[in-house]
Amino acid sequence: MRIDILSIFPHMFDGPMSESIVGKAIEKGIIDLNITDFRDYSTNKHHNVDDYPFGGGAGMLLQAQPVLDAFDATQQQAKQADYPTGRVILMDPAGKKFDQKVAEDLAKEDHLTFICGHYEGYDERIKSVVTDEYSMGDFILTGGELPAMTIIDATARLLPDVLGNQQSAPGDSFSTGLLEYPQYTRPAEFRGMKVPDVLMSGNHQKIAEWKQKEALRKTYLRRPDLIDYQQLTADQKRLLGEVKMEENPDPNYD
Amino acid sequence: MRIDILSIFPHMFDGPMSESIVGKAIEKGIIDLNITDFRDYSTNKHHNVDDYPFGGGAGMLLQAQPVLDAFDATQQQAKQADYPTGRVILMDPAGKKFDQKVAEDLAKEDHLTFICGHYEGYDERIKSVVTDEYSMGDFILTGGELPAMTIIDATARLLPDVLGNQQSAPGDSFSTGLLEYPQYTRPAEFRGMKVPDVLMSGNHQKIAEWKQKEALRKTYLRRPDLIDYQQLTADQKRLLGEVKMEENPDPNYD
Repeated sequence: MRIDILSIFPHMFDGPMSESIVGKAIEKGIIDLNITDFRDYSTNKHHNVDDYPFGGGAGMLLQAQPVLDAFDATQQQAKQADYPTGRVILMDPAGKKFDQKVAEDLAKEDHLTFICGHYEGYDERIKSVVTDEYSMGDFILTGGELPAMTIIDATARLLPDVLGNQQSAPGDSFSTGLLEYPQYTRPAEFRGMKVPDVLMSGNHQKIAEWKQKEALRKTYLRRPDLIDYQQLTADQKRLLGEVKMEENPDPNYD
Repeated sequence: MRIDILSIFPHMFDGPMSESIVGKAIEKGIIDLNITDFRDYSTNKHHNVDDYPFGGGAGMLLQAQPVLDAFDATQQQAKQADYPTGRVILMDPAGKKFDQKVAEDLAKEDHLTFICGHYEGYDERIKSVVTDEYSMGDFILTGGELPAMTIIDATARLLPDVLGNQQSAPGDSFSTGLLEYPQYTRPAEFRGMKVPDVLMSGNHQKIAEWKQKEALRKTYLRRPDLIDYQQLTADQKRLLGEVKMEENPDPNYD
């Protein structure tokens, strides 16, 4: 997969894109990451990339010219290396909410371009090349770099041969539909806090049931919207019933 | 504000935390950022920080010992510098969704600690020191570093004297309740795409009305959940009525 990033802060990517899983994917040649400073494409003599908004307003806007000219250059490089145009992603609070389903879709692409905004906003005409607008959530950041890296991280771990243990990806929350049960590793006791006995029992059936029940409990307490009752097995329905009894001891609870 | 980050990938923070707004806040002394590699606190002779889960399961878990010992060390440093314990934040898909309201709350604190998980998960006992669990959204990342940086970015821009233009922060989407209207900067025409005439008209009243209407249009089309009808002014209600007519030309539309 080729990934192009257009940003005026190319060094923001140095650490996050060279360490951890993404760094390994680049090392292995699974991801071909190209970062372009679109300030280099500004035709303005001071290499400015921002200007005042037409019609007034506070702050500066990113201009269409440097971004679109930089985009054309990266597209030409990609074409020479036989990559398709691919998806062109802009982070915007008004965009579609990024989630695991989007990450799975993006992982199927051969070429992704991220346009990272900054300042107060950007010239609307930048959107003429954009195929996807995504939002990370209802909060405001100083730029699109961190969301771009977040999407790349979530997408990269789904690419074949990126995660060491192929079993790792599907077992996570959101792919099973339930939140993760509490987990424990050595030592069995630390600062007076003990691992639940059942996990040390060696009784595989009881352990499996405990995990199932605690995953249901956490999901019931924190994200009941994730529980699709129709999809639960008979065992899961029984365990969920127990959880509800335990969490709502009031006998009048329905 | 003191910020402590506990991570086994301290170099991931190099770029994002030194460039852009966060970098400037650190330079100005508004943020005192301390990154601690909790691998340094592992009492294991190989400096491992992860181990197999009790009760079986794929993948490795972060152990409580290196994280909690590193946490104690940062708390001691913070105390010596007269900082309070502050909030201790863990990123978890089961956590509360991070949003602008949370960023505003965090911006009032004097000390924030971020514990960045990795691998398949972490020993539940790490949560014994955690005050807040946040989720970025329904997607899976390889670690907590990018979410921690995202929260720091969203929070830092709200601190006094961080944004150059004090007017910048409140004008954004989510603080006005509506999404941003389309914006344009020079040139007036680029690649055949023109700036809307009204923005060039110099008629301030018409421009203000256009901005209001387009903000309502974008919010109506993309995030109708953000429109609080009770809070709209009479003018906004009239403009929203026009938007609905324009976007739903079918005369049978209610």
